[in-house]
Amino acid sequence: MSKDPNLPMFSKVALIGLGLIGSSLSHAMRRKGLAGTISGSARSEQTLKRAAELGLADDLTGDAGKAVKDADLVFLNVPVGAMGAVARSIAPQLKKGAIVTDVGSVKAAVIRDVAPHIPDGVHFIPGHPVAGTEQSGPDAGFADLFENRWCILTPLEGADKEAVKKLEAFWKAVGSNVDFMDPEHHDLVLGITSHLPHLIAYNIVTTAADLEEVLGKEIIKYSAGGFRDFTRLAASDPTMWRDVFLNNREAVLELLGRFSEDLSALQRAIRWGDGEKLFDLFSRSRKVRREIIDAGQDTDAPNFGRK
Amino acid sequence: MSKDPNLPMFSKVALIGLGLIGSSLSHAMRRKGLAGTISGSARSEQTLKRAAELGLADDLTGDAGKAVKDADLVFLNVPVGAMGAVARSIAPQLKKGAIVTDVGSVKAAVIRDVAPHIPDGVHFIPGHPVAGTEQSGPDAGFADLFENRWCILTPLEGADKEAVKKLEAFWKAVGSNVDFMDPEHHDLVLGITSHLPHLIAYNIVTTAADLEEVLGKEIIKYSAGGFRDFTRLAASDPTMWRDVFLNNREAVLELLGRFSEDLSALQRAIRWGDGEKLFDLFSRSRKVRREIIDAGQDTDAPNFGRK
Repeated sequence: MSKDPNLPMFSKVALIGLGLIGSSLSHAMRRKGLAGTISGSARSEQTLKRAAELGLADDLTGDAGKAVKDADLVFLNVPVGAMGAVARSIAPQLKKGAIVTDVGSVKAAVIRDVAPHIPDGVHFIPGHPVAGTEQSGPDAGFADLFENRWCILTPLEGADKEAVKKLEAFWKAVGSNVDFMDPEHHDLVLGITSHLPHLIAYNIVTTAADLEEVLGKEIIKYSAGGFRDFTRLAASDPTMWRDVFLNNREAVLELLGRFSEDLSALQRAIRWGDGEKLFDLFSRSRKVRREIIDAGQDTDAPNFGRK
Repeated sequence: MSKDPNLPMFSKVALIGLGLIGSSLSHAMRRKGLAGTISGSARSEQTLKRAAELGLADDLTGDAGKAVKDADLVFLNVPVGAMGAVARSIAPQLKKGAIVTDVGSVKAAVIRDVAPHIPDGVHFIPGHPVAGTEQSGPDAGFADLFENRWCILTPLEGADKEAVKKLEAFWKAVGSNVDFMDPEHHDLVLGITSHLPHLIAYNIVTTAADLEEVLGKEIIKYSAGGFRDFTRLAASDPTMWRDVFLNNREAVLELLGRFSEDLSALQRAIRWGDGEKLFDLFSRSRKVRREIIDAGQDTDAPNFGRK
């Protein structure tokens, strides 16, 4: 595979942040031979130590500025709220012609925080791989994570076409489909498909946990009735999600408003015994599941194929 | 296995309703040799036809009264709202000494609707296997469904101890753990672990489906960001769930009140940028997931082990 004349795509790739996404990028690049060398940086000693043991990078450092030196492609894999500070700290070391991208779940706020720090001649192309698991940290990554998932790029006006093409080719090489959007649209679409679901999952787990004090261990014991599904999303990284909600506030509040209105209508139907309305709403939902399975975005095995 | 002197446990078992639970009971009984013969009834011609093709019962009929004749154990596997009418229709045919049980997700309402019809000398022991998938119908069943899941029995005051023991042994024989509760407590516990999660899942799918008209197919495409998880529960049988909400109204409305209060607090934290509060809430949820996995009630594979 390394004989492919198009590979490696980049002689040096820098991974700033080595959690679930950073470590998955490393595994995926290694498997496909997409990078000549990989440098990596992380803030915590513990992450750096594990990253070394796992061989996630050829060079590891606690200094993001050092990691990006001579890099042709730089990935910012840190919580959305940390993007601005990281961009500022690496800016003086960025190579002319380098591509800087990120993997943040929010795009408008990341552009607001990162773009002002990017020097002329460096290409900042924001991105978001819609892929992940509920796990985090350098041990959580795996090469397949991006396979058959979408990666959304939100290039700024006047972005260098060649640079965008190169980044698109990179994501395709790790197995993703690539889409382009403007940042505000991205934040609304991901608001409903990802941010609101996580918020609701966190909320129902909170409601249940408060009852756990009354009901003992029963909520855990009988969680297979449906509750367990929500606990997966609600086990996601707290720092990452705090930052998502703080940085996609307008879209999330708007969607939450719609959700609450719909819930009130459902509550009213239950209170007044309106079975027809409940049946109609529930029948409609079935169709959505079918569309997701047909689009290859979920398994059709019952119970997600769990035992 | 057929040499076991305790088998079959029951010479004739009647399955009233041959959907996911009814068909799974058939498969599980056949595998373990728990029933001498199995009779089955269903309302629709189509279900009866499929049940015959799948060999779900030795005798199939559209008349529930006929199916229960001479049966030692009768399972009512119909939506909660249909239990009363079914009990009335089979009552004259029930054998003295027979056990009648049900698999409904609500217990107080089922007892209210069924108990008055059960003749003296017949043992009515309400039950609820906390097991299922999002699929329904006679093709959805499989022998493993009850394995390592809880079955909750809610015997009435003065229930025959021998009969309760026999039913408990049956559920253990199909792989379940058995718990006992009073019906009202069951309805609260399942309200939070099953009914509220389904309601919330239906609601978020409704909210998203309304947006789909604006956002085109994007909600389906990017559903791997979290939304897809909710669509599984929201693909469950509409009739079954309509009946659950109509028949566990008080508990569901009370839990919905708590959920909405918690959601308002979360919404306020987002609006006012209270990152600390969000972080604390999200950190707490992680622990609940761990407890569920440790209790053997979910897989610890990332993403439920999906590709």
